[in-house]
Amino acid sequence: MSHNDTIVALATPSGSGAIAVIRLSGPEAINIASGVFRSVSGKELSKQRTHTVHLGHIVENEKVVDEALVTIFKNPNSYTGEDVIEVSCHGSVYIQQEIIQLFLRRGCRMANAGEFTLRAFLNGKLDLSQAEAVADLIASDNEASHQVAMQQMRGGFSSEIAKLREELLNFASLIELELDFSEEDVEFADRSQFKELVERIVFVLKRLIDSFAVGNVIKNGIPVAIVGEPNVGKSTLLNALLNEERAIVSDIAGTTRDTIEDEISIGGIGFRFIDTAGIRDTKDVVESIGIKKTFEKIEQAQVVIYLFDSTQYQEQSDKFKVELEKIKNKYPQKPLIILANKVDKIDADQQAKMRAEIPEIQMLSAKTGEGVEDLTKKLLDLINTGALRNNETIVTNSRHYDALLKAFEEIQKVKYGLETGLSGDLLAIDIRQALYHFGEITGQVTNDELLGNIFANFCIGK
Amino acid sequence: MSHNDTIVALATPSGSGAIAVIRLSGPEAINIASGVFRSVSGKELSKQRTHTVHLGHIVENEKVVDEALVTIFKNPNSYTGEDVIEVSCHGSVYIQQEIIQLFLRRGCRMANAGEFTLRAFLNGKLDLSQAEAVADLIASDNEASHQVAMQQMRGGFSSEIAKLREELLNFASLIELELDFSEEDVEFADRSQFKELVERIVFVLKRLIDSFAVGNVIKNGIPVAIVGEPNVGKSTLLNALLNEERAIVSDIAGTTRDTIEDEISIGGIGFRFIDTAGIRDTKDVVESIGIKKTFEKIEQAQVVIYLFDSTQYQEQSDKFKVELEKIKNKYPQKPLIILANKVDKIDADQQAKMRAEIPEIQMLSAKTGEGVEDLTKKLLDLINTGALRNNETIVTNSRHYDALLKAFEEIQKVKYGLETGLSGDLLAIDIRQALYHFGEITGQVTNDELLGNIFANFCIGK
Repeated sequence: MSHNDTIVALATPSGSGAIAVIRLSGPEAINIASGVFRSVSGKELSKQRTHTVHLGHIVENEKVVDEALVTIFKNPNSYTGEDVIEVSCHGSVYIQQEIIQLFLRRGCRMANAGEFTLRAFLNGKLDLSQAEAVADLIASDNEASHQVAMQQMRGGFSSEIAKLREELLNFASLIELELDFSEEDVEFADRSQFKELVERIVFVLKRLIDSFAVGNVIKNGIPVAIVGEPNVGKSTLLNALLNEERAIVSDIAGTTRDTIEDEISIGGIGFRFIDTAGIRDTKDVVESIGIKKTFEKIEQAQVVIYLFDSTQYQEQSDKFKVELEKIKNKYPQKPLIILANKVDKIDADQQAKMRAEIPEIQMLSAKTGEGVEDLTKKLLDLINTGALRNNETIVTNSRHYDALLKAFEEIQKVKYGLETGLSGDLLAIDIRQALYHFGEITGQVTNDELLGNIFANFCIGK
Repeated sequence: MSHNDTIVALATPSGSGAIAVIRLSGPEAINIASGVFRSVSGKELSKQRTHTVHLGHIVENEKVVDEALVTIFKNPNSYTGEDVIEVSCHGSVYIQQEIIQLFLRRGCRMANAGEFTLRAFLNGKLDLSQAEAVADLIASDNEASHQVAMQQMRGGFSSEIAKLREELLNFASLIELELDFSEEDVEFADRSQFKELVERIVFVLKRLIDSFAVGNVIKNGIPVAIVGEPNVGKSTLLNALLNEERAIVSDIAGTTRDTIEDEISIGGIGFRFIDTAGIRDTKDVVESIGIKKTFEKIEQAQVVIYLFDSTQYQEQSDKFKVELEKIKNKYPQKPLIILANKVDKIDADQQAKMRAEIPEIQMLSAKTGEGVEDLTKKLLDLINTGALRNNETIVTNSRHYDALLKAFEEIQKVKYGLETGLSGDLLAIDIRQALYHFGEITGQVTNDELLGNIFANFCIGK
């Protein structure tokens, strides 16, 4: 991969819209754009100041391709740290392609996935974990994942790691200095201070490593299995949850969902709902395959909702109780929410009877909205997002998690070495290893393959 | 519809991408944006110059929603002629919605379809036909429709109409002036000069009205019926045409088509291909319904391609000849292209035999590409796009066409009135009517309902 050429890509979503933005970055960006741009004011584009916008026409061989706004960013004051041009053109797919092809003919190269952000990293505009957060930010579809990605992009995570790394580096230098004076048996590095630092690092690393469980939930959504037969109101329930949420966070019309295998954001957290069938006792082979599948899905879930139609309670209460017992016995640890739906259709006596027989039951009318708020509260209570509320750093990236685990292992060795009076030269090796893994996170230690892997997951144009 | 408030909308295509642009327009645009924007440089947004870009954070209640670039356009130097703010944010759907909702909470209103362009029209930045061209431009998906929309947007059409209108208006004023002096029997308006003008207007209007046929073809694509049974290679042919085109105009990978009911751009002109079956003679009821449908589709087409498998020529030549006769008899005026496909599988003798029996036959191998170029040449030759090449004004909009027809009718009355020595007061009425219809095109004459109809077809954000 060469990074001395000028790249071009569509930066806005593909498809038709009012406007589209085409981005160029590299040493020839301004020259190439100047060559095809005729400003309305008659001014030469290349002589304009950074961060200014110019109206004009994109022209090739006297043919006007489009009227466009061109924004100029001069290095180093741009996203990539290079000269950058953004062309805001009319949003037809035809025009987007014509303009991109024009730039390709003028010497640009089509950007690879994530190449703008890769250049930003290589030019020191972002560290590696910040660059990774850009992709997370674009992928985030709820408040929690957005907030975590934003914190990481703004350097929260990197600065925590960088601080530890720097302190550790100080001690490493002192210990390595001792090695130069090894015949004189001096101790530049205060062992008790060093022990204290190592313990602090162990503590922070453990917290970060533990946060990955929460981070994972935030990034991927919480899987919730809904156990319930057809027509008990699963889709209505999900639409009710969606509407409840929409009333709170949005007044933009959304889509009503037809399938329940879908993700819904509740209170800023993503929940992935998994549709399952009932679990009745059966000798039928086909049906028992279905039941096996239901259990497999419950297995993947972090929360189980048992949903039944309360108008059928009188006839089927035995079946319900058996099914509930089965779930409780098989998954004693898994939070279980029992929902009696369609309570708008039954009377108070029947509700009282259900409550008496299944004390933890929650009443619901997905149709009228009764009980929906209680349910969202319950779902959110089940998820420990204390860390999120306290604005603590949360690890969501499995690459970071791996590096933290490796750093933790090395620091444990250092700790043990300190406790057992290991010689300075051996201590230094373990410290260097820990430092290496810290550096992997922020990108101070890196290689082409690693970068290739990370940026391949970006979209083109970022 | 109020036009004194501040509107907001997503300007880029919906969906996820590297960046998205949210646009605000109206008297409070800069204030509202300033209220939620914290610039990295610490400068106050509202004090910045027009056409400048600023990096900073979109913030609400101390929570950072996104890092964004904000561009400021001060009235009247903006698209709408009002104060305009463009926020270029990270392209996640979540962030787009959060920022739009933030602006709605701060007092913006969600823009209606086309409302930015409507405001541009109301503020005199564009005339009506230019505004309509913006929507055409975004919808254009081939070179011809793009070029026509671009010409119209840049004022080519309006200026032609406006020039005629102005000259006509001059004469109208003179004739009306005569009415004030009617007792004195003077002639301010030179009747012979006026006759000459009216004839010139008739000539131009006729050309514009005639151009609508070409305009329609350019805007909607040329319908081409392909008569051919399954497996004669219809899809392969269309993919071959697509690849031929792609090799010429584009190096961006496109999609291969599975259906042949699709539009393909050839030489910058859109062709809509319509799949039909064969037309053999039959007594079978079901089959004769199919044949009726084939004829209906040929009816809609402007060009007919008869495609057959040349490896089956020996067995089926009689059937082919009968079918061709039928098409020629039923549609003697319709251009017919006869294609023998799969000629890579037959020898020279067989080709010679086919040529002898059907002189106008064209050889094709959709698979190897042989004959594809001849076909595209033939298709383009059939379409008279001389007007396009000569850069003449072409009418593509049926509203303009209607207005031109009405203006033409009135001008014919004026012409007749002049020839028969109609009195000035009656002449003036007809001239005023013609002027009215000219004004409808450019928007000098307008009403809310008309504007509503025109801009309802725009996308939101434009």
